[in-house]
Parts: sequence; C-alpha cells; structure tokens
Amino acid sequence: MANATKSARKRVVIIGGGFAGIHAALALAEQPVEITLVDRSNHHTFQPLLYQVALAVLSPGDIAQPIRSILSSQPNARVLMDEATGFDLEARKVILGSGNSLEYDWLLVATGVTHSYFGHDEWAEIAPGLKSIEDAVEIRRRVLLAFELAEREALETGNHPELNFVVIGGGPTGVELAGAISDTARLYMKNNFHYIDPSRARVMLIEGLPRILNAYPEDLSASAKAQLEKIGVEVHVNTMVTGMAPGYVYVGEKTIPSVVTLWAAGVKASPLGRLLGFPTDKNGCVIVDPRMNPPGHPEIFVCGDLAHIEINGRVIPPVAQPAMQMGDHAAKLIKADIAGKSRSDFSYFDKGDMATIGRKAAVARIVWPFKANWSGAPAWLVWLTVHVFFLIGFRNRLIVFLEWLWTYSRFKGGSRLITGSQELPGWNERKE
Amino acid sequence: MANATKSARKRVVIIGGGFAGIHAALALAEQPVEITLVDRSNHHTFQPLLYQVALAVLSPGDIAQPIRSILSSQPNARVLMDEATGFDLEARKVILGSGNSLEYDWLLVATGVTHSYFGHDEWAEIAPGLKSIEDAVEIRRRVLLAFELAEREALETGNHPELNFVVIGGGPTGVELAGAISDTARLYMKNNFHYIDPSRARVMLIEGLPRILNAYPEDLSASAKAQLEKIGVEVHVNTMVTGMAPGYVYVGEKTIPSVVTLWAAGVKASPLGRLLGFPTDKNGCVIVDPRMNPPGHPEIFVCGDLAHIEINGRVIPPVAQPAMQMGDHAAKLIKADIAGKSRSDFSYFDKGDMATIGRKAAVARIVWPFKANWSGAPAWLVWLTVHVFFLIGFRNRLIVFLEWLWTYSRFKGGSRLITGSQELPGWNERKE
Repeated sequence: MANATKSARKRVVIIGGGFAGIHAALALAEQPVEITLVDRSNHHTFQPLLYQVALAVLSPGDIAQPIRSILSSQPNARVLMDEATGFDLEARKVILGSGNSLEYDWLLVATGVTHSYFGHDEWAEIAPGLKSIEDAVEIRRRVLLAFELAEREALETGNHPELNFVVIGGGPTGVELAGAISDTARLYMKNNFHYIDPSRARVMLIEGLPRILNAYPEDLSASAKAQLEKIGVEVHVNTMVTGMAPGYVYVGEKTIPSVVTLWAAGVKASPLGRLLGFPTDKNGCVIVDPRMNPPGHPEIFVCGDLAHIEINGRVIPPVAQPAMQMGDHAAKLIKADIAGKSRSDFSYFDKGDMATIGRKAAVARIVWPFKANWSGAPAWLVWLTVHVFFLIGFRNRLIVFLEWLWTYSRFKGGSRLITGSQELPGWNERKE
Repeated sequence: MANATKSARKRVVIIGGGFAGIHAALALAEQPVEITLVDRSNHHTFQPLLYQVALAVLSPGDIAQPIRSILSSQPNARVLMDEATGFDLEARKVILGSGNSLEYDWLLVATGVTHSYFGHDEWAEIAPGLKSIEDAVEIRRRVLLAFELAEREALETGNHPELNFVVIGGGPTGVELAGAISDTARLYMKNNFHYIDPSRARVMLIEGLPRILNAYPEDLSASAKAQLEKIGVEVHVNTMVTGMAPGYVYVGEKTIPSVVTLWAAGVKASPLGRLLGFPTDKNGCVIVDPRMNPPGHPEIFVCGDLAHIEINGRVIPPVAQPAMQMGDHAAKLIKADIAGKSRSDFSYFDKGDMATIGRKAAVARIVWPFKANWSGAPAWLVWLTVHVFFLIGFRNRLIVFLEWLWTYSRFKGGSRLITGSQELPGWNERKE
C-alpha cells in the first residue's frame, strides 16, 4: 500500500465538508495541487432538507452523501475523516485530533456553525436543534414517539396528555419544522391511530422578534405567518422563552406543557473559528476581508457560515448559496495565485431565498432570473425544483424526486422509523 | 378523543410484528374481532435484507415499514408500541411494560429469536449480531469506520493495520454478511481511497461444523464455499471460536487480529417464550402441537421462529416462509373457531431456500414451482425477484428495485453513512 510520502505539489487543506468545502474541492479538480479535505463526519449533508429527514419524509441517505464518493473521480483530492483541533499558523500546520498534523500552502476553514442556547447549555438535552443527520434522526424519534406514547396511554388508560409541539425560533428552520410537524400530524398520519386524533396536536412556533422570517421582506413574513396559521400552527411573535424543563417550556410567567421541544433560535460559530486566533463577531464567526482572508494571512480563507464578511455595508447571510459561491471563489483565488494573476474580491450573487411551510405552501424571495416575491403553491413548486436540482448525485436526485411524488400525491410520508431509545424526556415527569 | 371502552367483540392479541404477527393480523381483516398487535418497536423489519442495510446497499427505511402504516386500512386492528413482560394465563391477560394489561380471547405469541453467545454475553459488545435495524446500522458504522480509520492512519503515519473482517457462523446470515463485505470492499469502494487498497481487505468466515449452509443440500454448500472463495472470502470450516477481545478473535491457540468481528453463530428464543411457562427446546423455543398450541391451551398460538413444531418428524425451520404461513394458519384457526368449524393442522408448504453470496452469486434450493438446486447468477436473479416481490409496500418495492439497479449496474453502493460514535472497539488497543 502507498506510503504517505510528501508530494512535490502545493498543498490545499480544506476543513469542513459542507457546501463551501465541497465546492472549493471540486473547483480545484484540474489544478496541480494536492487537496486534503478534512471532516470529522464521513458525509456531506444537504442541510436545507434536514427538516424532511426529521419529519420522516426523506431518509438520511437521501440527503447525505459520503465525501469520498463525491470526490472519488478527482485524483488530486484526498479525504480524511478526522477532527481538526487547532492550528500552527507559523508553521502552516493543522493539528488533528489524532495528534498528527497536516501541512498546507493554502488553508480553507469552513466548519460552519452549531446551535447556541445563549448560555443555557442544559437546554440542549431538552430541546435538540437541527444541524446534522444525527440531530434529524433524534428529532424524528421524539416526534414519532410522542404520538406512539399518547396512543399507548389512551389505549391502556383511556387518557393521554395534550400533544403540544413547541418550536423555538422563527427563522427558516423553525418555520420549516413547525410546518412539517403540522403537515405530518394532519395529512400523513391519517387512519394511523385509533385512540388519539393526530390532527388535534398543537404546534406552537415561538419567536422573540416582532415577525418570523426576519431576514425576508415584510410581506413574505406576513404571508408565512398566514400560511402557517392556515395549516394549524400557532405563531407567537414578541415572545421570549425564559426557561425550560423536560416536558415544559416557560414563557415569562406562563408554563406551556410540551411533549417535544425543538430549538431553532440561535447559532454560534464552530469552535475552530476562535482557535484561528483572529477577531470574531459576537457569534464567534471570523471577520475576514472581501477576499475571505483574516488580517495578514492571504494563505488562509474562511468560508461559509463561519465567515463574517461585509460587502458594501451588508453582511453576507449564513445560508447555502453564498457558502457555495465562497467555496468557488476561494478556489478561483488559489488558481489566480498559481497562475501568478491578481486576486479579485468576492461578491455575492443573490438569487433569492426560500422557506417551505408545508405541502403546497412556501415563501420565495426571487431575485434571479427575475424579481418577485411569491407565496403559496407557486413558491412551493420553485422550492421543489430548485432543491432537487441542487442535490449532489444523480441517485439522490432521483430517489428524492420519487419520495416527494409519493408523499405529496398520496398523502403518505416516507418510512416513519423510531430507532434507539424509547424514552421521551419529560413524558413520565408530567404533573397532571 | 375516544375512550378505551371495552369492545363487545372478541379480542385477538398478537405479540410481535414480524412475519408471523403481521400475516396473522392481515388475514383477520374481515373478521368480527378486535385485534391488538403489540410490538416494542414501531416497525416491521424485512429481516432477509437486513444485511444489505448493514453493508449500506439499502437504507433502513427501504426494508422497514411502520406497523401502523401496514395496518392503517384495517379498522379492526389497533397497534400498540409497548413491551409484553409477562402473562396471566388464568385471567387471559398479557402484562405490559407500562404495568397495564391486555385481555384476550385468542393470544398469538410470535416474538422470534435473538442472538445467543452461548453463555459469553460479554462478546455482544465485541461482535454484534444482526436482528434489528439498530444492529444493521451499528454493523454499517463499524465496517465503514474500519476503512476510514485505516485510511486516516495510512495518510497520517504511513502505516495501517491489516484490514481483517471476521464473521463467525456459516449459516445464511454469516454467508451473506461475509459476501457483502467482500463485494463492498472489492467492487463498490473503487477509487474511494488513496492510501489503502480496500480490495486487499481479508474477509474470514468461521464455521464450527464441517460445512457452511448446513441446512442446505451438500452440493449447494460446496457451491456457496466456492463462490465465496472466488470473491475472496476465506472460508474456515471445522473451526471453533474459543474467545475474543476487542480487535481479536481466538481460535484455539491461534489469535486472529480483527478490525470488525460479527456474530452470526447462534440464536436463542425471545425471553417471552419461557415466560409462557410451557416446555421449551434447548434454544428456549416453545414446543407446540401441529395447531401451534402449547399443551392444554387452544386459545394460545405460538408462531414463527419462537415455535418449535415437529411435523412428520421434521422440525419446521426458523425462516421467513414458515413464519408467514404459521401467521396465516393461526388466523385460519381463529376463523374456524368463529365459524364453529373444526381446526386443521398446520403443514409447511416448502417452496425452497436461498442465500446470496454477492453480486451475481447465490445458491437456491428450489422446491416450487419445480425442483432444482441452482447456483451463481441464475440463483441470484431468482433471489432478486423473490425479495422485491415479498417486500411490504409498493413504495419500498420501487425504491429497492431502483437502488439495486443503481448498485449492481454502476458498481456503486447506496449511501455509506457513518452515524453515531467514531470509535471502533479495539482499534486503539492493537498490540503491534
């Protein structure tokens, strides 16, 4: 077997196999460089569809692809499943969890963001967030288990608690989770239960600001709220969660019983951001210039959600499109270096934003190829098309297309599997 | 919501949502009875394809179906996700994990078998077996992780251990696992690694008896061995495993380093078998008469792998076909009781047996619709057809068909996801 002999070619180390990292690696395919893509997980996750795994419309394998498979036809790219734990910027080395290190000529750091519980880390057990396949499977487990436990209790004792689902945070993830829970309960679980009526489950979406989808135009926020309410989601704006316990959410003086609580309220940068040692913003994202470089280090790029870039006074939003474009642009700058050309600034080509609310319900702020704010079924169709198109891999595109055809035409979800523990935090601690 | 009021109709309680339980419930659809199907998991698993989930050809959702969905169009069937923990045969009650109980007029117990480590329960952590979706995902995690850790070590240090996979037990499950590991390493991981050569992984199948597939005709056993060896599996018969440790398997005086050890050597009855209180065989399976009743209890049926039935001196084998037929027959006997007719004995309609070895490799003992012993590609095609046909649910049949088309024509597996822990038992304890 081959030895890890040193290559004479220049080395690009990419940390993080998200949109930015994958795009950068793919864009460097023809370059005379040796790329090492490091990720502590073995797969790239199509995060915009994670909520569909959480609600059992799609399977984990439909939206996750091994990074090795994505790069298997690219001879200049190696994939390393390991954790980066620090940097030696002087020696141009990445320190790995195994204790070994990787030398680089260019370094791209794109490890994204994780949940932030605003100092209440103890809430993480009570209210999981949605960033990984593991998170999605855990949310799926809890949501499905709540219906099963309620049916069990009703069958065995004649009574069961109110099925309240509380989603905290009214950004796109919160909106999508709340809408999808409501769709699942109302549409896809029909005739599945004898003693409970899943369509009577209450879904509450709690947002601290005056409107949900705060980054969207006001009319789309209003439309999203109306569409959510139409499918039975209770939207509470200007509402701050002040505490929680297993089975309960506290909003000021009010106690809301909650069989499943989900967290979509805040994010903070991956710890690697601070470990680089450069100035960060309040979320821990690394403040970089329009070439994505931290001060004094043109050989280092910070891309994707981990980067804080301001262009013409506007901060680039932490979503998928700019992450892909940053990855592509970082590759372009490396190519410029190789060719001895000068570097260009990154500029964000904003095609728009979308958030789904449910079956035939969505909002879309379209900027390209034309400007429009769409709501309802037309926005939903745009969303379907765009998301199938952007999935990596023909197999995944085909399978997801078929799963959606199945789900949305026959009112049946995918395989609603409960795996792992059969305990629901707080179920047995109810005070009734 | 509805109350759990007592039904005037007679009650059938089915424990276990495997082949026998599901078949019995479906066959009673038109009867004036109230069926309660109890399973501690929420899904029916198509066990004959579990090994394909373990090797990432299929996703868990492709071969598992929520029991609720299977029975959703059957108004006389309720599904209860709970654990049966005991019986009160006098009062005709099943005791549940929740402390509640269920009364029955007829009881069908079909909770199957689980792994048996022949008194070495400490081996379970080292060498997982394959009975559930959770088992399959754990085996997938270990097998894929072994390749990732070897690549990591080779990339970072220039060396890695020999990739030995040891499968203990030469029955159908062991044969299928060993063959599938070899196929994955040789065919589906091509171009995925830079520092290791997955096709040089060693796969060892260890069997204590003089031949593998002991329940098959001798020529098929010999053919299976030859087919396995052709794809690189080392078959060791007459070989007893005497011990194991994380990273090692002991065979008498010999120590075999093993990055992943899998257990397919023995099964024992689900504990519910003994809790019924009737005579059992050495595996704990309940000895019942040809009407599937234990002595003196015509209202109780024991079906599937949990049942020990001898008909004309031959014990019915613990595989899928007889389990389905027993479920159907139990339903037939309940119908006879309802109609006031007399009961008939169960007879096993043996259509044959099949075991896959790999892509285009299998053995099939065909009894119906004609008698033949087939090997190789023809047997494999029969296997493909039969298994797609028997999957429950149109969606699963379509998706599995497409996944196979994809895998077997393009030499790519499904989504090879590693989820959960990133530790491999024994990896760091190697003594080299």
